[in-house]
Formats: sequence, structure tokens, C-alpha cells
Amino acid sequence: MYRTKNCGELRIQNSGEKVTLAGWVQKTRKMGGMTFVDIRDRYGVTQLVFNQEINAELNEKANKLGREFVIQVTGVVSERSSKNTHINTGDVEILVDKLVILNEAITPPFTIEENTDGGDDIRMKYRYLDLRRSNVRQNLILRHKMTFEIRRYLDEQNFLEVETPILIGSTPEGARDFVVPSRMNPGQFYALPQSPQLFKQLLMVSGFDRYFQIAKCFRDEDLRADRQPEFTQIDCEMSFVEQEDVLNIFEGLTKHLFKTIKNIDIQGDFPRMTYADAIKYYGSDKPDIRFDMQFVELKEAVSGKDFVVFDNAAYVGGICAKGCASYTRKQLDELTDFVKRPQIGAKGLVYIRYDVDGSLKSSIDKFYTTDDLKSIATLFNAEPGDLILILAGEKSKTQKALSELRLEMGSRLGLRDKNVYKPMWVIDFPLFEWDEETKRYYAMHHPFTSPKPEDIALLDTDPGQVRANAYDMVVNGVELGGGSIRIHDSKLQNRMFELLGFTPEKAEAQFGFLMNAFKYGAPPHGGLAFGLDRFVSLFAGLDSIRDCIAFPKNNAGRDVMIDAPSVIDQSQLDELNLAIIIK
Amino acid sequence: MYRTKNCGELRIQNSGEKVTLAGWVQKTRKMGGMTFVDIRDRYGVTQLVFNQEINAELNEKANKLGREFVIQVTGVVSERSSKNTHINTGDVEILVDKLVILNEAITPPFTIEENTDGGDDIRMKYRYLDLRRSNVRQNLILRHKMTFEIRRYLDEQNFLEVETPILIGSTPEGARDFVVPSRMNPGQFYALPQSPQLFKQLLMVSGFDRYFQIAKCFRDEDLRADRQPEFTQIDCEMSFVEQEDVLNIFEGLTKHLFKTIKNIDIQGDFPRMTYADAIKYYGSDKPDIRFDMQFVELKEAVSGKDFVVFDNAAYVGGICAKGCASYTRKQLDELTDFVKRPQIGAKGLVYIRYDVDGSLKSSIDKFYTTDDLKSIATLFNAEPGDLILILAGEKSKTQKALSELRLEMGSRLGLRDKNVYKPMWVIDFPLFEWDEETKRYYAMHHPFTSPKPEDIALLDTDPGQVRANAYDMVVNGVELGGGSIRIHDSKLQNRMFELLGFTPEKAEAQFGFLMNAFKYGAPPHGGLAFGLDRFVSLFAGLDSIRDCIAFPKNNAGRDVMIDAPSVIDQSQLDELNLAIIIK
Repeated sequence: MYRTKNCGELRIQNSGEKVTLAGWVQKTRKMGGMTFVDIRDRYGVTQLVFNQEINAELNEKANKLGREFVIQVTGVVSERSSKNTHINTGDVEILVDKLVILNEAITPPFTIEENTDGGDDIRMKYRYLDLRRSNVRQNLILRHKMTFEIRRYLDEQNFLEVETPILIGSTPEGARDFVVPSRMNPGQFYALPQSPQLFKQLLMVSGFDRYFQIAKCFRDEDLRADRQPEFTQIDCEMSFVEQEDVLNIFEGLTKHLFKTIKNIDIQGDFPRMTYADAIKYYGSDKPDIRFDMQFVELKEAVSGKDFVVFDNAAYVGGICAKGCASYTRKQLDELTDFVKRPQIGAKGLVYIRYDVDGSLKSSIDKFYTTDDLKSIATLFNAEPGDLILILAGEKSKTQKALSELRLEMGSRLGLRDKNVYKPMWVIDFPLFEWDEETKRYYAMHHPFTSPKPEDIALLDTDPGQVRANAYDMVVNGVELGGGSIRIHDSKLQNRMFELLGFTPEKAEAQFGFLMNAFKYGAPPHGGLAFGLDRFVSLFAGLDSIRDCIAFPKNNAGRDVMIDAPSVIDQSQLDELNLAIIIK
Repeated sequence: MYRTKNCGELRIQNSGEKVTLAGWVQKTRKMGGMTFVDIRDRYGVTQLVFNQEINAELNEKANKLGREFVIQVTGVVSERSSKNTHINTGDVEILVDKLVILNEAITPPFTIEENTDGGDDIRMKYRYLDLRRSNVRQNLILRHKMTFEIRRYLDEQNFLEVETPILIGSTPEGARDFVVPSRMNPGQFYALPQSPQLFKQLLMVSGFDRYFQIAKCFRDEDLRADRQPEFTQIDCEMSFVEQEDVLNIFEGLTKHLFKTIKNIDIQGDFPRMTYADAIKYYGSDKPDIRFDMQFVELKEAVSGKDFVVFDNAAYVGGICAKGCASYTRKQLDELTDFVKRPQIGAKGLVYIRYDVDGSLKSSIDKFYTTDDLKSIATLFNAEPGDLILILAGEKSKTQKALSELRLEMGSRLGLRDKNVYKPMWVIDFPLFEWDEETKRYYAMHHPFTSPKPEDIALLDTDPGQVRANAYDMVVNGVELGGGSIRIHDSKLQNRMFELLGFTPEKAEAQFGFLMNAFKYGAPPHGGLAFGLDRFVSLFAGLDSIRDCIAFPKNNAGRDVMIDAPSVIDQSQLDELNLAIIIK
């Protein structure tokens, strides 16, 4: 060992001890004949003292230390005269009598500080230096702690972690697979798993009863903000369970993490909201319920007053922003600009100001009397001082826009505190989504999701109305994960494939081996998968998942640090029986 | 929940309780008016009883149950009249009053028993059924427990588990990479990691201090027996350590696993043997030290007696098999055939029989007097009743053959008990291996392995003699893992690249980003990786790693269950800018 103590553990009680530390030079300061050096490692920072009068040669050596040099020092722990209360070791310093430079360092391209001067691009190129910053390191320590506690909880609940393969077969349905050419099987390809879905269902057929895996998953998608081509799921499956059992276990896991990691006791059961209510009241299947501000539907109340915008709209809805009646013209214009941004796409914004004096003013005074406005305000339970904001248009698009406006108002009003956590379940998802373009139904979750037993009759008459035994866990407007009870009855499964437009041959080609497995005795089963990256970033208070991943890729799917992907040798291509054809 | 209890937990104390169980039909037996059904789940087997006199309809339903049907039963726990001491639930049975068939099953292609009638190929095709067998399931439960305890131990030792990426860059040096074409970067490829080596060293540069990961690794090699294209490593790295520190930590981990998993206390330090001694005394860098039978070198003792086989041999060596003087002609012929097998390749086998009456007989009596034979026997400390077996020829090849013969004799003498564990360290590996074909040195471990400080001078004069700070852990002749102290000095690293025949440009192209990282202050560091699959199979007493992997691939790298790899659509190839050219 190059050290007897680490840089974060010395306290006043260690005074007088002779210790050896090793780490990086955080900074050096020369004050008269004294030189102070902060030495840093993963565990903390300790102050070193060199004194010219005691050892001029050593002092000179210390003065030549550059930032990020790797050093080893030996000396006596001593109480500081001016203590630093910001760090754990702030009561002491080391009077150094031996200094070894283990490695020199050239000047890093950005400062190794919490608030670094480095931009995103350079931090990613030099990610190994970025990871020296204590806040980035803390995110990864948090990730380690969370995965440890996840495993502890699930182990206690009798779950077995089983590794499923990374080199699997390609499934053309769904998102795009990454593929891996097989040298030993010319012209054939493995695929990297988008999730271990099929394998975990096979494990249930195998009688594993309770499975989990913290599993790498892969999706070759055009990367939107905050997507990574490889990501990590907490993947789980259980046998002989109903929806209630799955929700209970994973509500338990979530509470366990809040308690052990954040020291937060979440009291009571997580609220549950149907998908239909989530859309109706929040315009989103992942509502942020840290604040209320529910949608009020106004179509009926506002129709027939000759205001064509409302009369022609399929949907008119609004929210009530408490205490915002005092918003200025400028602020209202900002909100109008906000909803008119292309990614939100509303045509305009209607407001009704319920002033503190009880008077009502609106942008639609031409069409609505004060009494009209008052009765609208009543629908919102609005009080003097409140501001009502209204959007109108095509239903689903307007609900989405109103949802964005609601979140914006929540942010403006400080109602989205990162240290407040409001977990919930969204349940009763539709089984199918109708796609106008291809004129067919798609499975909203995946083709193995079970319909609610009471809705099975609707499969024949009105598939769009069938609700699924599917559920999502949502915290603060972030979808942490979701799952479903699976179909274990082969007749029902075949009916599903039919409704999804699979011919029996295509169903056989794609899912044949799973369907075949089911013939040998499949238990009722269901499961869930959480996005680990999102879970960690939620706990870390980060807006992006990138900083809770050690070596993330950029939006072009590149690792700019190691410069991957890259070209490979012609001999490698030849061995793989491949040629590159760029059109 | 479909059950109130599982199939492994009912005891005599539960008598009289009304319970509901769910599981698979293991077997049914009809005895008079009674039908007995064994119901199985992951946790065990419970006997169900149906009585025609009590409920004829229910009894008839039970009689129609097929093997592997999935059922749910409700009934009262009752003490058995004839108890089964082989199973935990053998004191009780369930008097069933309700039976629900949750799913039917067609007849499985092999029996779901520990000793199945299914061969390897069919078991792999129906792996999901194979996994129902309790011995296969136990291997995976063992794997779960081991990884849990590995994480617990390393967490307590301040190691952080950090996920490194699976989509990385290709490194032409070393084994063949699996590659992944990048759609977003036409003509470019990711590679799958052969190990997280470079990333873990970068994490040390980042100051992570102690890293581990239970990591999937990939190698596109022609599969010999017991190799898998994807395998799992317990990958670790530590900063500010010397070899001794690494050995201590991982000796501790190994003892922890023996204690918590096998309830075996390994007393004292693991023995350490230099690579040179391992080769000299065992002819192998992974000696099985459950038994002694060390090599004795005989070249000097046997030379000059006109026996040209020995006179012309670079190496003559033998082993002494205690108590085997009574071996028959047939047994000796068997051993001769054994060493002459092509994979062992000896030309012949010389024996000296030291009979219990003190007389000596050998296959070389023509050349050696009784006194000659006696003095050879003395070199082995042989006693009357022992058998000396001698091989001669080219040194390294003969040592390898003698090692195989030693293992064979150990097996024949019952000295290789699977329940006896003898862990050890092999240390002081050579830094380089000379390759006659390409006339150059190769790194025995990898190019970042540090030479022993005392041997650094030899780099200039006799590189072949330089020993490395590299080490392997070996248990019962199985190499569980190994590692090294890394070079953290860039001058020494450049000298290594030079000796390995890298031009500065090639070194830069391949390892530039790591070398660049080192310029910013690399700490002294070192690490180790264990093969998890081998570790589990050792603990499970398996000869192959395959049965401790849930979904293994066959020797052609195929998953025969899901039939992967397979062809992909032309549209997928087009998107990837690839064409298949099979010559």
C-alpha cells in the first residue's frame, strides 16, 4: 500500500499520528515561507503543510508541484490554527516530512472542480478527467449504492438474478436492433437485446418463479435528447401473480430505495390513477403530481357564444394558476410564445384574469360576458388573484400542449421542487394503439400484455376500448418503469397476434419459440422493468441521464473519448463475409 | 396471488391449515380409489391426495392431469401415514378439495428429473424445460448467491461497481472482436469488449480508487470445449496498491465465498508458487495441488548409459505413483496409450516398478542396472510398492505431457476429490513470451503489465528473463482468474511497446487514448479478473461451465433454442450500408 490513511478520514483525534497519504494535487498556495497543498482522492481532501524554515529543499519541491500531480506524502497530523468547516478533514493538516512524486501531470483542459470551466464536449472527450470532479463521482457512487440496495431488497423477496444472453436473435418488430455479424455462421447475425423480455418469460416457463436482472439493453434509434444506444434496466418477472402482487413488490422496492438512499419515508400506498384520468386531468400518461392544477374541460361551457375558435375546436380545456392574476402583459406574451413553439404547437392562448378586486378580464371579452367568465371561473374553483389559461383545438394535441403549459406554470410557481418526491402508479393502459398511417393496431406495451379479463369480450367488438393489465410507475412526471401481466393462454395469445395483423406464419417466425415453450406449461406471470439510468438521475436531481453513466455516448451515438465507432480492417470485413456499400 | 404457500414450505406444524398451492405436475399415481399427485415449483415438491370416495368428480379430473400441467389446488394440510424423508415436505400431504388447471402441457421431449433421459442436444434446444430440472436450477441459484456475496464483500471493502460500455472500439491486437455496424456512422463499427481492461484503468486515472464490475465479455474465437462467445468476469482494479495488497483482498474474497457459500473455512494463507516452480514441479501454470506427485528431473541421472532416447532428449522427467507397483501389463499399456494420444503427444512411456519385495523392474532394464534404477528411485524418495513413470523429449512438450500423466494418475488414485479445495497463487509470471513463428515477443498477460522492479534492467539485455508483477489464482488445477500490477510510468510503457514491436504510431493508434489519459496523472494501480462461470462451476462440482449459464451457446456459437444467429432482412443490411459476400 502506498498509504496508511486516505485523504478523507483524518480528524482531530488523529493529531500526533504519523501518516502516509497518496492522491492528486488539488491546489497549492504559497504564503510567506509556508506552502499549503490540498491533496485529493476519492474519499476527500486533506491539507498538507511545507515550511521553508524547517526543510527548504522539501519546500522547494512542493512549490514545483503542478495541478493533478500524483503524490505520496508522509508527515504528522496536526491541529489547524484556522479550521475549515466545509470539509470533514478541516480540523487538521499534515506537517509533511517526505514527498514522493508518483506521477507528473500536464495541465488538464478544464478545472477539476464542481463548477468546472469545461463545456459538455470537452468534458466528454476527457471523461476520465471529468470523472475526477466530486459531483460526477457522487452520481456514480449513488448508482453503486442504488444497485446494491435493489439487489438486497429483491434477494430478500426471493428473486434470483439470472444473466440472459447479449448475443441473441433479431426481432424485426419493435425498435431497430443492433446486429452482430457471426463469423462462424456466414451471412448470419446476432442481435443485441432491446430487453430480456422473451428470456424472462422463458424463465417463468422454467419455473424460476421470481427473476430479476440489472440488464444492459440496446436500441439503435435516432437519439433524441437523453436517449443512449445502450441503457440499463432493472428487469423483473414473477409467476403466479396478479397485477396487485407486482405493484406491491415494486412499490416496496421503491420505498426501500427512498428510505435507504435518500432517508425519505414515503407514507401510505402510492396513489393510482387510470390512464384515462391521467390524460383527462393532466394531458399526460406521466403526470407530475407534485402540484395540482388539474385540467378543466370547457367545451360545453364555452360553446355557442360565436367564438369560432372555441366552437370549431374538438377540445377546449384550461388550468388555473393560483395567484397569477397579476401577470403582466409581457408575462402573458411569454406564455403565448411558449405554447406557440413548434414542439408544443398551440395556435394561441386564452386567459381569464380573476383580479384580487373580484373583477374578471380576459382575452375573449368580446365574446363572453362577465357572468360567462365568472361561471367559467367557478368551474376551476378559481379565487380572486388567480389566472385561468385556456387552450383549444384537436383533442390529443391540445391536451399535450396544455400539459406542457401546466408544467411550465408549475416550474414558474416553484411547485416542482427536486427534493419533493411524488410517486404514483398509472394503470389501466389501453391494450392497443391505432395507427392512422398503417391503418392497424399496435400493442401499446408489447404483444404479450394481457387484456383486463372484464374487457376480453371487447376484443371482438371494439379493440380500441380494451384496457390492459399494464402499469407504469411515475415519479415527479418521470416514467421510471412499467410492466404488465402477460398472456399465458395460447388461444388468447393467437387472438392478439391476429388483431395485431400477424399472419400465423409471421407470428410463428417471430415468436414461435416462445409460443412453443408455452405449450409445455406456462404459469400465469407478469413483471416490470425500471430504467436504472432514469432512477439514478431522479435521485441525483439531474435533468439528464448522461451524468449518471460513467462513459456515455453523444447524440450521434459516438463515444468521443475513445473515438468509437471506427473503421475496421479489410481483413476483419473479409472474415465476416461483409462489404461496405455507402450510397 | 395464485397461492398462499409455495410447494417447498409445508411442515407437520402446518397440519390442519387450509392452503392454496400452484405449480407443475411432477407425477401422478393411482392407487385404488386414491390418486396422488406431486406438485412442483422452484421451492420444492408437495404431495396432493384425491379420494374417489370423497369427491369422484374431482378425482376424475386429477386422473386426467398430464405431466407438467400447471395447476392450482386448495385443500387441508394433513400428516402423511407413510412419510417421505427425502424431501422437506415429506411429513405432509394436501387433501385437495379444489383443483384448477391453469394451463395444460404437451408431453416434454425428455423427463424433468435430475437424471433425465434427454441428451445434450435436445436439452439445449428445450433449455427452458431443462431449466426445470432441480440440479440445473440449483446451479443458477448458486450463481445468484455467489454474485450476491461477491458484491457484498467488495462493497464492504470500498469497491464501487461501475458499468463500463458494451459498445466500444475495436482493438486489432489480441483475440478477435465481435463487431457491431453503426447505422448512424456509415462504414464504422463498434466492438464488444473482450474485457473492461482499458476502462477500468481509466477509472483509476479518474481516482475511483477501487472499482469492480461483474461484466459481460465477448470473444469471437473458434470455440474449444468449454468456451463461450460471451462470458462473465468479476473484474476489479485498485489504486495505490502493490501486488501484496491485491492478493490479500482477493484471497479474502475467495475465503469469504468458501465460507458463506460452501461453509468451508480455508485456514491460513494461500500457498504461493512461482511460475518457474509450477512448470518445474507440475509442468503447468495451473497445478492441481490436491495431491503431491511432483516432477523429478532425471536428465543428469539417466544420461551416458547408451539409452539414446534419454541421451537425445532435452528433458527427462518422471513422477512417482505411490502404491502402483502392482499395476498390470494392461494398466501400463493403457497409460502408454494415454500419453501417446495425439493431444498429449509423447513418443512412449518408461516405467520403473519398485516391487513390495524391494526388487526393481523397468522397461529399460537393458540399459540400466539395478543399482542405476535404485539410485533413480532414491531421487523420487520411492518406497517399495511404488511405480515410477518417466517421459523424455523436447522440454516444454514433455513437461506438458508429464503434467497430463500426473493428473491422470491423480484421478486413478482418487486424489482429486471434488469436495476438497486447494486454492493457491501462481506468481512471478514471465513478462514476455517469445513467438518463434513471428520472431517477436508477445505480452504474456497484456501490454500494461508491470515488470518486477528488480528485473527492469533485464529489459535491455534479456527480455525473456524479465518477470512480471502478474499473478493467477488457481484452485484444483483450474485457473479462476489472474491479474497484474500495471505500468503507470509512461517511459516504461513506451519501452514495453517498443519491445512488443509496436511503432510509436501503432501504439498511438491503438492505445493512444489510454496513454494520453496517463499524462494527466495516473496513480500506481493493479487489479485482477476472475472468470465467474468457472468459479461457479468449480463450486457446483461441474466439469463444464455450460450448466451454470442459463442460456449457453453450443460449440458453433449458436443458441439452438432461439435459433440465433440468423439471417436478417435486406432492408436492415441496406440501412447498415452492408452487403454479404460469401466466397
